[in-house]
Amino acid sequence: MINRELINPQSIVIVGGSNNVQKPGGRLVRNLLDGKYKGDLYVVNAKETEVQGVKSYANVAEIPDTELAIISIPGKACPEVVEVLAKQKNVRAFIIISAGFGEETVEGGIIENQLLDIINEAGASFIGPNCIGVMNTNYHGVFTQPVPEFHHDGVDFISSSGGTALFILESALTKGLRFSSVWSVGNSKQNGVEDVLEYMDRNFNPVTDSKIKMLYIESIKQPDKLLYHASSLIKKGCRIAAIKAGSTDSGKRAASSHTGAIASSDSAVEALFRKAGIVRCFSREELTTVASIFTLNEVRGKNCAIITHAGGPAVMLADALSKGHLNVPNLEGPIANELKSKLYPGAAVGNPIDIIGTGTPEHLATVIDYCENKFDEVDLMMVIFGSPGVVNVYDAYEVLHKKMGQCKKPIFPILPSIVTAGPEVRSFIKKGHVNFSDEVTLGTALSRVLNTPTPASTDIQLYGVDVPEVRRIIDQLPADGYLNPSQVRRLLGAANIPMVAEFTSDDKDEIIEFARKVKYPVVAKVVGPVHKSDIGGVALNIKYEEHLLFEFERMMRLPEVTSIMVQPMLKGTELFLGAKYEEKFGHVVLCGLGGIFVEVLKDVSYGLSPLSYDEAYSMIRSLRGYPIIKGTRGQKGIDEQQYADIIVRLSTLLRFATEIKEIDINPLLATDRGLFAVDARIRIEKK
Amino acid sequence: MINRELINPQSIVIVGGSNNVQKPGGRLVRNLLDGKYKGDLYVVNAKETEVQGVKSYANVAEIPDTELAIISIPGKACPEVVEVLAKQKNVRAFIIISAGFGEETVEGGIIENQLLDIINEAGASFIGPNCIGVMNTNYHGVFTQPVPEFHHDGVDFISSSGGTALFILESALTKGLRFSSVWSVGNSKQNGVEDVLEYMDRNFNPVTDSKIKMLYIESIKQPDKLLYHASSLIKKGCRIAAIKAGSTDSGKRAASSHTGAIASSDSAVEALFRKAGIVRCFSREELTTVASIFTLNEVRGKNCAIITHAGGPAVMLADALSKGHLNVPNLEGPIANELKSKLYPGAAVGNPIDIIGTGTPEHLATVIDYCENKFDEVDLMMVIFGSPGVVNVYDAYEVLHKKMGQCKKPIFPILPSIVTAGPEVRSFIKKGHVNFSDEVTLGTALSRVLNTPTPASTDIQLYGVDVPEVRRIIDQLPADGYLNPSQVRRLLGAANIPMVAEFTSDDKDEIIEFARKVKYPVVAKVVGPVHKSDIGGVALNIKYEEHLLFEFERMMRLPEVTSIMVQPMLKGTELFLGAKYEEKFGHVVLCGLGGIFVEVLKDVSYGLSPLSYDEAYSMIRSLRGYPIIKGTRGQKGIDEQQYADIIVRLSTLLRFATEIKEIDINPLLATDRGLFAVDARIRIEKK
Repeated sequence: MINRELINPQSIVIVGGSNNVQKPGGRLVRNLLDGKYKGDLYVVNAKETEVQGVKSYANVAEIPDTELAIISIPGKACPEVVEVLAKQKNVRAFIIISAGFGEETVEGGIIENQLLDIINEAGASFIGPNCIGVMNTNYHGVFTQPVPEFHHDGVDFISSSGGTALFILESALTKGLRFSSVWSVGNSKQNGVEDVLEYMDRNFNPVTDSKIKMLYIESIKQPDKLLYHASSLIKKGCRIAAIKAGSTDSGKRAASSHTGAIASSDSAVEALFRKAGIVRCFSREELTTVASIFTLNEVRGKNCAIITHAGGPAVMLADALSKGHLNVPNLEGPIANELKSKLYPGAAVGNPIDIIGTGTPEHLATVIDYCENKFDEVDLMMVIFGSPGVVNVYDAYEVLHKKMGQCKKPIFPILPSIVTAGPEVRSFIKKGHVNFSDEVTLGTALSRVLNTPTPASTDIQLYGVDVPEVRRIIDQLPADGYLNPSQVRRLLGAANIPMVAEFTSDDKDEIIEFARKVKYPVVAKVVGPVHKSDIGGVALNIKYEEHLLFEFERMMRLPEVTSIMVQPMLKGTELFLGAKYEEKFGHVVLCGLGGIFVEVLKDVSYGLSPLSYDEAYSMIRSLRGYPIIKGTRGQKGIDEQQYADIIVRLSTLLRFATEIKEIDINPLLATDRGLFAVDARIRIEKK
Repeated sequence: MINRELINPQSIVIVGGSNNVQKPGGRLVRNLLDGKYKGDLYVVNAKETEVQGVKSYANVAEIPDTELAIISIPGKACPEVVEVLAKQKNVRAFIIISAGFGEETVEGGIIENQLLDIINEAGASFIGPNCIGVMNTNYHGVFTQPVPEFHHDGVDFISSSGGTALFILESALTKGLRFSSVWSVGNSKQNGVEDVLEYMDRNFNPVTDSKIKMLYIESIKQPDKLLYHASSLIKKGCRIAAIKAGSTDSGKRAASSHTGAIASSDSAVEALFRKAGIVRCFSREELTTVASIFTLNEVRGKNCAIITHAGGPAVMLADALSKGHLNVPNLEGPIANELKSKLYPGAAVGNPIDIIGTGTPEHLATVIDYCENKFDEVDLMMVIFGSPGVVNVYDAYEVLHKKMGQCKKPIFPILPSIVTAGPEVRSFIKKGHVNFSDEVTLGTALSRVLNTPTPASTDIQLYGVDVPEVRRIIDQLPADGYLNPSQVRRLLGAANIPMVAEFTSDDKDEIIEFARKVKYPVVAKVVGPVHKSDIGGVALNIKYEEHLLFEFERMMRLPEVTSIMVQPMLKGTELFLGAKYEEKFGHVVLCGLGGIFVEVLKDVSYGLSPLSYDEAYSMIRSLRGYPIIKGTRGQKGIDEQQYADIIVRLSTLLRFATEIKEIDINPLLATDRGLFAVDARIRIEKK
């Protein structure tokens, strides 16, 4: 739980505060004093009577009642201190800086549990242990530097690593990013990143609260909570950027070597972030760039005007935007000509709009006005303005400052001369602006923002899925393992996923009879082995009865084979649909084209069950092989709507059958007469 | 031409020098004085007798003989001044800062030509016009800021845009990158980027010259020269990083709106850079990061040790390295355990090696020693060390400084606390080091470096190609346009590229006779139309004579059809091979898998003709669909060596037949009996 005492404490005690600002306890007091904390401040330090001008008590038993305790003493000494504070001093919020708990030793873990019990019993908040602390507009309760500027419209930043939080702050500071709050949750004993987000969501005040959230997550322990509150905040007008570290195999090992956390599968993370509408970032630089983008007016389209006084960076930026599927629309016609006539000879307005090196602040103002008012095809402006070091650029930056206040279209300031025009850039930032010093970094980050979907609908699409029947089938299954063909057929049938006609038997005559009925050519497959084709257990395009008889005899002799399944041979485009249950995340649904697309090119999209139609279409359309689905070079495409139907219905089925740990429909064949599941494997595991 | 007078002038005159350092002429003088130029310095300024303490002459006619003139006066006044300087004052090098020439107006272009004529006649060097100038260890001849530090082992930087050069310098300065020379070539009237590189190559002194070159190129006017001298320098031990701006369509338009240059096709650029061994970059940040990597000891393998005192950045770095196909090998066993025992509890050595937040400089030293001496599986070290702002980190950075001097394996310093540990980072950089403040930016740039091939062999593979026959065929062709099937067959035959048997005729009986001979099934195709399949001009798998007769009648009635071609129907994997002639670059050869791979997925590799075997194999192996060529999931692969043979031989053929503007071999069918060209289109254009 998080409470008012943690966020806006009227009194704070620093247990372990000291005069030595080279030590955590000393720096903590210093930061609180430098931050002009307005409430009552006490220090507990047996050796001092005053610490940095603050009254110091020998013992926690001696202090007055206090709302928040920030504790920086050895781990073993914590339980006793916390007990006194919680029970006798009415402390209702604890930030435990100290390390050496569960992250290091088993004994440490036991002490950590004791602390949690005491604090929970008192109904108090608990941040940490093993964290750098909390800072916001009310107080700076951290033992580290840097301490950024705090404003209500700054960024709310929650980090599961203290050290990483610091380095992210370093990257933010150079951009001019301001903060509203910084939370380092350490071992997350009572509150993790998800819990802080929950608090922000449940108590969201659109007038006073920041609308920008920045997350650094090492392990998603409560995916549902993260999904729910992130989506909810975004629907309330917030923007969220997050790093989930450990996205590859090496990365994963690193994450677990660090925190003992087992990293979640990355496709589940990817799917969750997309479903929630969180902009996923992969570096500190990218995270702080995306958060800086969020501080500007909302971007309402993908058409960018690049305004510059130097050609090169504009070209590189245009390249980056184009790679990120944004547009740099050509500007021409009477208005463009009119604009050109107001600039120096040699200036270009085609977009990039290049006012050339000698262009004046007035030229800059004119170009911005044209983009704001006259070029309807422009959704946003990116202004590149540096200094050759000959004249100062205060006037140009003043124009930028004013226009950013007046214009409705967002203006991205790219001020590259951070050394030569250092004073001018700093003065610009001091007015509350951010600066993107590298245009390509900005272009890439902006595409990431604009290519992130809005939060998905949380409605479950029940139409077409017979949920009671799904439950009956699952509940009646006698044992864990792979379902047999008729169970598969019944289950997919309950979700209205059409399967190709088929017949399974170990009786030669029955097989022949079925083949005559559905007509040749047919396909024969072994039943029993999991990887059928690897052992020669699949025969396609059987055209004659003699051939079928031959295959029947041959296949029945293969190891583990219990019977033979026969289907009519259908022709069409192979699709793939599958899902995997990820602990806590639920089912990650994968879709794509079959064959080499899934096997060689790994061209699959992910989504988290249950899926909305928007999500299903977005999954299908983000495939590299999508042109084949759409139809290309005279080839007819496939029925995209039916594919989406099946994806959505499968995801609904899975939502109500979490016992399914793995399902593969491969191929799902798109024929002239519709889509049919030709082969499917389903593995269940009941706990 | 470039001469000694330009690089190391004994005397310099600034024409247009002034007392106002807010103006180019004033800043030029200031920079030369600040840079402690040791030769004789003169100023020409009609209004002054002394400029910033330097003697000023009213007129160029009055100055003593001088080696280098830097000119900053209006463009129209330049020819007269240059004439006097070249003819009367023995000036042998000119840097013309002034703008307003060919880049702005036609009249300007005429003046620019006059200047070139005068300078060429005098046998002098000419840089510019429309540039910021030249600076090196001898003098700082630019009118701009920033002016970086110059050292002989710094970076040689050549830029075709002055403004962009400045912004690249800004990005370099924050990393601590030092320079050996900076060249802004402006309109490149006498010397472009390629020419400066040529000079550096021809005069390369491995003892005194810098081995790091950084290029910013807006338009490659002399691709041959760039390729030749870049390769040559790299073979002499240099490393080259370059941006070629304008890589996408929007980017391209931007480039041409800026300089009037028509951007070269990007695939040709990509192919040229790979052939030369140039590391291609796409942003200023990336360029200066790659150049910073070049300043460290050479990387001899892809196995990285990540040494850190904070988990998060290490995880993100491991992710980035892994995405870039580098390794973060797991470190375990007795040596790893021994190392772990020397660190604090909670430290991890599995790689990342995390000495934890409280880890000491001694711990850092120990870990580096283990990586240098005991872990043979480690090729390089990346050290992440920031500051929580509690203690200063001078000691840790001193350890890093010493170890970087001692170790043979490269050590990459990642010092993220650029604000909090600002003084410590600056002091570290002052010792001659670079700093990578963002670990992911470094990881991505390093993968780019390690994934760039070494310069390709320049030998032409003549084996198997009958060059005289190629020339005979080309020379005998009566007209431009597409070759007919028999011409195609002869030409490919001359390069020993096997074609499927085929027969073309408008005579029904001849066609039938051929089909009987090669045996059914056969394929029939129309001759005449270019896009055969779009008009129904291709019939596959014709099994009976009646069917062939039917198709013959039908096809002969299609528009533009002159005759019908018949081939036996082969089975196999479809490959693609093609080439396009790019003006000045020569032929860009494309290879890949056929069908959807080329049409939908655009999965093709590029190379510049003529190709070596290494290049051909590298092209084949960089395909996303390469697993299919290699053989996957029980499917036999294709004969990779024969594919490489054909690619190399085609590239040799093209090298001697530049009249071929376009060639498509599609499909090139990989059958059990080898590879056969099934269909080929060749378009020639003689000038």
